Amino acid sequence: MGKNEGEENGFDPENRNQEEEKKKHLKEEELSVERIFENQEVPSWRKQLTVRAFVVSFVLSILFSFIVMKFNLTTGIIPSLNVSAGLLGFFFVNTWTKLLQKSGLLRQPFTRQENTVIQTCVVASSGISFSGGYGNYLFAMSERIAKQSTDTLDVKKLSLGWMIGFLFVVSFLGLFSVVPLRKIMIIDFKLTYPSGTATAHLINSFQTPQGAKLAKKQVRELGKFFTISFLWGFFQWFYTAGENCGFANFPSLGLKAYDSKFYFDFSTTYVGVGMICPHIINISLLVGGILSWGLMWPLIEDRKGDWYPADLSSDSFSGLQGYKVFIAIALILGDGLYNFLKVLCQTIVGLSHQLRYKDASSGLPVADHSSLVSSQLSFDDKRRTQLFLKDQIPTLLAIGGYVAIAAIAMAILPHIFHQLKWYHILVIYVFAPTLAFCNAYGCGLTDWSLGSTYGKLSIFIIGAWAGASHGGVLAGLAACGVMMNIVSTASDLMQDFKTGYLTLASPRSMFVSQIIGTAMGCVISPCVFWLFYKAFDDLGQPGSQYPTPYAVVYRNMALLGVKGFSSLPKNCLLLCFVFFGGAIMINLIRDLVGKKWARFIPVPMAMAIPFYLGSYFAIDMCVGSLILFVWGKINKAKADTLGPAVASGLICGDGIWTLPASIFALAGVKPPICMKFLSRGNNAKVDKFLGS
Amino acid sequence: MGKNEGEENGFDPENRNQEEEKKKHLKEEELSVERIFENQEVPSWRKQLTVRAFVVSFVLSILFSFIVMKFNLTTGIIPSLNVSAGLLGFFFVNTWTKLLQKSGLLRQPFTRQENTVIQTCVVASSGISFSGGYGNYLFAMSERIAKQSTDTLDVKKLSLGWMIGFLFVVSFLGLFSVVPLRKIMIIDFKLTYPSGTATAHLINSFQTPQGAKLAKKQVRELGKFFTISFLWGFFQWFYTAGENCGFANFPSLGLKAYDSKFYFDFSTTYVGVGMICPHIINISLLVGGILSWGLMWPLIEDRKGDWYPADLSSDSFSGLQGYKVFIAIALILGDGLYNFLKVLCQTIVGLSHQLRYKDASSGLPVADHSSLVSSQLSFDDKRRTQLFLKDQIPTLLAIGGYVAIAAIAMAILPHIFHQLKWYHILVIYVFAPTLAFCNAYGCGLTDWSLGSTYGKLSIFIIGAWAGASHGGVLAGLAACGVMMNIVSTASDLMQDFKTGYLTLASPRSMFVSQIIGTAMGCVISPCVFWLFYKAFDDLGQPGSQYPTPYAVVYRNMALLGVKGFSSLPKNCLLLCFVFFGGAIMINLIRDLVGKKWARFIPVPMAMAIPFYLGSYFAIDMCVGSLILFVWGKINKAKADTLGPAVASGLICGDGIWTLPASIFALAGVKPPICMKFLSRGNNAKVDKFLGS
Repeated sequence: MGKNEGEENGFDPENRNQEEEKKKHLKEEELSVERIFENQEVPSWRKQLTVRAFVVSFVLSILFSFIVMKFNLTTGIIPSLNVSAGLLGFFFVNTWTKLLQKSGLLRQPFTRQENTVIQTCVVASSGISFSGGYGNYLFAMSERIAKQSTDTLDVKKLSLGWMIGFLFVVSFLGLFSVVPLRKIMIIDFKLTYPSGTATAHLINSFQTPQGAKLAKKQVRELGKFFTISFLWGFFQWFYTAGENCGFANFPSLGLKAYDSKFYFDFSTTYVGVGMICPHIINISLLVGGILSWGLMWPLIEDRKGDWYPADLSSDSFSGLQGYKVFIAIALILGDGLYNFLKVLCQTIVGLSHQLRYKDASSGLPVADHSSLVSSQLSFDDKRRTQLFLKDQIPTLLAIGGYVAIAAIAMAILPHIFHQLKWYHILVIYVFAPTLAFCNAYGCGLTDWSLGSTYGKLSIFIIGAWAGASHGGVLAGLAACGVMMNIVSTASDLMQDFKTGYLTLASPRSMFVSQIIGTAMGCVISPCVFWLFYKAFDDLGQPGSQYPTPYAVVYRNMALLGVKGFSSLPKNCLLLCFVFFGGAIMINLIRDLVGKKWARFIPVPMAMAIPFYLGSYFAIDMCVGSLILFVWGKINKAKADTLGPAVASGLICGDGIWTLPASIFALAGVKPPICMKFLSRGNNAKVDKFLGS
Repeated sequence: MGKNEGEENGFDPENRNQEEEKKKHLKEEELSVERIFENQEVPSWRKQLTVRAFVVSFVLSILFSFIVMKFNLTTGIIPSLNVSAGLLGFFFVNTWTKLLQKSGLLRQPFTRQENTVIQTCVVASSGISFSGGYGNYLFAMSERIAKQSTDTLDVKKLSLGWMIGFLFVVSFLGLFSVVPLRKIMIIDFKLTYPSGTATAHLINSFQTPQGAKLAKKQVRELGKFFTISFLWGFFQWFYTAGENCGFANFPSLGLKAYDSKFYFDFSTTYVGVGMICPHIINISLLVGGILSWGLMWPLIEDRKGDWYPADLSSDSFSGLQGYKVFIAIALILGDGLYNFLKVLCQTIVGLSHQLRYKDASSGLPVADHSSLVSSQLSFDDKRRTQLFLKDQIPTLLAIGGYVAIAAIAMAILPHIFHQLKWYHILVIYVFAPTLAFCNAYGCGLTDWSLGSTYGKLSIFIIGAWAGASHGGVLAGLAACGVMMNIVSTASDLMQDFKTGYLTLASPRSMFVSQIIGTAMGCVISPCVFWLFYKAFDDLGQPGSQYPTPYAVVYRNMALLGVKGFSSLPKNCLLLCFVFFGGAIMINLIRDLVGKKWARFIPVPMAMAIPFYLGSYFAIDMCVGSLILFVWGKINKAKADTLGPAVASGLICGDGIWTLPASIFALAGVKPPICMKFLSRGNNAKVDKFLGS
C-alpha cells in the first residue's frame, strides 16, 4: 500500500498529453498523503499520550475482550480487530472532542497520532484475550476438559489469581522482543501488514483536513465499501442458524471441492486483504492449498492403514492431522530461519560497514544493504521514516528489559506450574526471538498470525522433554502459553507499528501505549473469562453454546507430545525435513534469480498456511487480487489510488459487523434461517423426512 | 426505450460548456440508431422473406418447441424466448452467410429485417407449444388426468390427428385480430413491449455497421451483461437439485415474507425487464402485491370457516385461490375495458375528423388525437413510423380473414368436441378481439402475457353455460383452448411487431412470417408433445419427472365451473365488482388529473398480476427500476444510452441459458447440490436426522 500511495492521481486516462504539465504539479501537490497533513504539527510523543485516550481505550478494551472471548469459546477462530479498534476509537474521541469544543472546554485537538495510540492500546489489551489461551491451552489444563479426554492426571484448578499472575509474567516479553525488529520489518523490508495498513488508512482518511480532493474521494470509496461490507455481513448473518449454514459454507466450486476446503466463503475481510497483499502472496497461498489439500493429503490418505492406523478419528494427531500440522510448521520454520539468518548477515555487514566508515549522517544505516528497499524515497516515505526513527527506543533498554523479565519468569513460573522447570523456560526464551521474528515477518506478508502454531510446537517439544511421568502434559500446555504470548504479541504489535509509521505516531508513545494496554489486558481478559466460566456451567461441553473446540484439541496434542516424536505417523518426520529444506531452497532461488524472476516464485511462508486451514481464505484473497488486477487493466490510476481505500472499507465494514454480531450472540438473538447445502441424494432424504 | 434512444450521448458530464456546440452536432450525427443504418437500403418486403430464413426458422422452431414443452410439463411457467430466437437466428444465418461469402456464393447479404423475420417465425411457431395447452387444458381432457381428479366422466382420448386439426383451426385467428390493433399499440400508445424491444436492440446491435461509436459501446455493455447473466444462470443451476432449492427460492426478506411470496428471486430476466419498464409500472406491480398478499389475502384467510370451508386444500378454487384468480381477472377486465373504450372513442373521433377535413397528407391520422403521442418526433421515430406504415395490410383483409376463419371454426370444432356448440364458439369469437386487445395492451406495459387468465375465464363461462349434464367440463376446456390461442397470439405477435418497428422490418413480411410460423407450430408442437407422451409413461403423474401440475388444476377449475358462479366462495363476486369498478375509477382519475400527476398513480392492469402470482417478480423489477434510477442520478447520459443495452443483455443472457438448461434436463444431467432454506427449528431437526 505504501507503494501505491501518492504515485498517480489521474482519474481520466484520456487527454493525457494535453495536461501532462499541470498534472505533474498536481501530483506533487495533492497526492502525497503527508503533504495534506504537512501543515498539521505532529505532537511530541508525550503529548500523544493523553488521559482521554486511555479512558476510551479502557472502555473499548472491555468491549473487545468480550468479543474476542466469544470467538475463543465458540469457534476458536478470531478475525483481526485492529480496524474496528481504530474506527471506534475515532468515533469515541471525536464525539468527546466535539462536545468539549461546543462547551468551549477543549484544550487539545484530536490528532491521528492520538487515534493510533488508542488503537494500539486496545489491540494490545484485547490481544491477550486470545493469547491468554482461554479457548485453548489454559482451559485445556482444567479438569472439565481433562474429563473429556481419556486422562485426569495432569490438571490444574482454574482460579482468577494465578491466571492474572501468569499473564503479567509472560505478556510483556513479546513487547521487548519486537522493539529491535521494528525498523527491519517496516522500513527495510517494507512489509505490508494489511490490517495495520488498512487501519492507518482509515485513521488518515478520517483525520484528513478539509479540501484534499483525493483524500475525499478515497474516504467516499472507503465509506461506500465499508457500508456494503457491513450490510453484507448483516445480510449473511440471517442465514447462519446452525452449523455449516450460510454463505461462509457456500460450496461455490462444488461439494467435492468444499470437502477439501476449496470454496469462496464470501468473506469481504479476506477479499480486502487480498487487495492489499501483493499478487504473489495470494498466488502462493493458493499454490500451497492446491499442493496440500489437492495433492498431498489425498495421497497420504490413500496410505491409511499403512502409514497410520485407519481407525483414528479425523482430528487425531497420529493420523492425517499430524501431517498437516507438522509439515506446515516445517515449512514456516524453514522460511523463517532463512530470512532470520539473511537479515542477521545483512545487519552484521551493515554494522561493520558503518563502523569502518563512521558514516553517521544517514538515518538509514541498514537500508542501503537491503535488497528490498527502493533507492528513491517519496516524500511520504521520507517524512514517515524520519518521524519513525526520531524517537528511538534504545536497543539496550529492549535487551535489558527482555533479560530482566525472562529472569523474573524463570523464578516465578515454576511456582505456578510445578511441572515446568526453569531450564524449560530458559530454552523457550532463547529461541523465542527467532520465532517472534518469523511470525512478525509472516504476518507482515500475509496478515495471518501463526502464534498458535508456534504454541503447538512448544507443546510437543517441552512436553516430550518433561516426559509423561513428570507432568509433561501440563508443562507442555504452560510452555505453549509462554511461547504463544511472545509470538502473538510480536505480530500484533508490529501491525500497530506499521499503523504508527503510516500515521506518524511516535514509536515511543506507541511503546508506552502497548505497555499500558498489555497491563489492562492482563487484568480485563481473565475477569471476562471468569464471568463466562461462572455464568455458563456447560462451558466447554460439546454441543453446548460455548463448546471451546480447541481446548480438547490442545489437550490431546499435549497427550500425544509427551510420547515424543516417535508417536508421529510414519514418514511424517521425513516429510517435515523435506519441506524444511524445500523452504530454504525456494528462498535461495528467489534471492539468486534476481528481482525480475523472483516475483513469479511463491513464498513458502504463505504456502504453509493453507496446509492446515484449507484454501477457502486463499480463494477469497485471490478474488481480491483478481479484482485489483482487472481494475488495474481497466484504469490503472484509479486502481492504484482507490484500491487501498476500497480494500480498507471491505475489511473495516466486516470487522465492525463482528461487534453487533457478538452483541446479538451474547444477548441470545439467534439468526432465523439456515441456508444449507445438501447433495441431491441427501436433499431427497431430507424432503421426505420433513414431508412426513 | 424508444424514448431513451438517441437523446444524449455525453459520457463525461464534466466540461459541458466547453464542447456544447460540438456535441449538438454529434448528437444528430451519431446517436440516432437509424442514422447509423441510413446508408443501408431496406429491402422490399418480399426480399425480407428468404428461403434460408425459413429453413433456419424451422430448425430453431423444433429446438424451441422442445424447450417450451419441457417448461410446460415440469412447472408450467414459461419465460419469454423472443430474445433467444433473435440471437440464435442471427448466429445461424450469420454463420451461413459468412461461409457462403467465403465460397463466393453469397447472393444476398444478411439484413436485420431478415433477422426479425426469423425471430418472428420462431416465436409464432414455438408460442403454439404453450398455447396448445399440452401442460394445461389439452392434457386436462385426457383420462390420465381425469383419474387423478374425482371424475372420469368427460374425457377425450388424445390422438395426434385431432390435435393438429384443432390447432390449425384455432391458431390463425389471433393473427387476424392483431393486425388492426398494430398501429394503435405501437405508434399511438408507444407501448414498451420489453421483450420485443430487447430483441430489437439485440438485432440492431449485431447488425450495426462498423464505426458507430455509441452502438459499439452499447454492444460492449450488452455483451458484458449478457455474459454475466448467462454465467449467473449457469451458476444458479448447480444449486437447484430438488424443489424449493436454489437462488430462485432465496428468502431474502425473511421466511415469513417468503411464505407470502415477497422475495427477490435473483432472476436477471426480470431485473432487466424492470429496467426497460417505466418506473410507475414496477411500482404498480409492487403496490398490487402488497395490497393483495400483504393485506387482502391474510384478511380473507382470517375468515376461513366463515367465507369458505376451512378444510379445503390450498389450491381449491372454492377457497382463497378463488379470490386470488377472480379478483385479478376483474381488475384486468376493468382496466382493459376502460382502455378499449377509450381507444374506440379516440379512433371514432379521429376518423370523423379525418373524413371531415379529408387530410390525407399526414401519415399519422390517429396520432394527432392520441393523448400519449409526443408532438415532436425524432429522426428514428419518423423513419420507423414511415416504414411501419408503408406496407399496409388492408383492414378489410384482416376482418374478412377473421370472419372466414371464425366460420370454419364454428363448422369444424363441434365435430372435434361434441360438447362444444357452434353458439359457444360464436360468443367467444365476438368477445375475443376485446380480450386480445386487453392482453396485447397489458403485455406492452408489463411484458406479462395473461393468455392463461383469459383461458380460465372461458372455462368458467362456457363450462357453466354448457352445464355438467351436457359435458360442460370438456366444453369449458376446449373453450379455454380457443380463447387462449387468440389472446396469447395477440400479445406474442404484438411483441414481434414492436421488434419489427424498431428494426424497420415490413409489417407485411412479418405477417407472412407469422402465418408460416404458425403453420409450422401447428405441426411441430403436437409431434413434440406426442414424443414426450409416448416416451414417458408416468407423464402427468405427481412426483414424476414431468408432473404437469397445471393439467390437474385446469381440470379442477372446469369441474368447479360447471357448477356456475354460485360455487364461488362468499363475497368473491362482490369483491370482483368492487375491483372492476375500482380499475375503471383509477383510469378515469389518471386521465383527469393530467400528465403531471398521472405518473404517480398506479396502473390497475399491472397491479392485478401479483394478485395471483405473488410479488417476487415485482421485487425483481423494482430492483431493476432502482438500479436505473440510481444510475440516472449518478450519470444521466450514461444511464439513458446504456441502460437499455444493459437490460437487454440481462434478459438475453438468462434467456439463452434456458437452452443449455433444457438440454441438460432432457439429457438427464441433474444439478448436484440443493441450496435449501430452513427455519432454525427445522434445521436442528434435519441436522439430527442427517447425523443419525
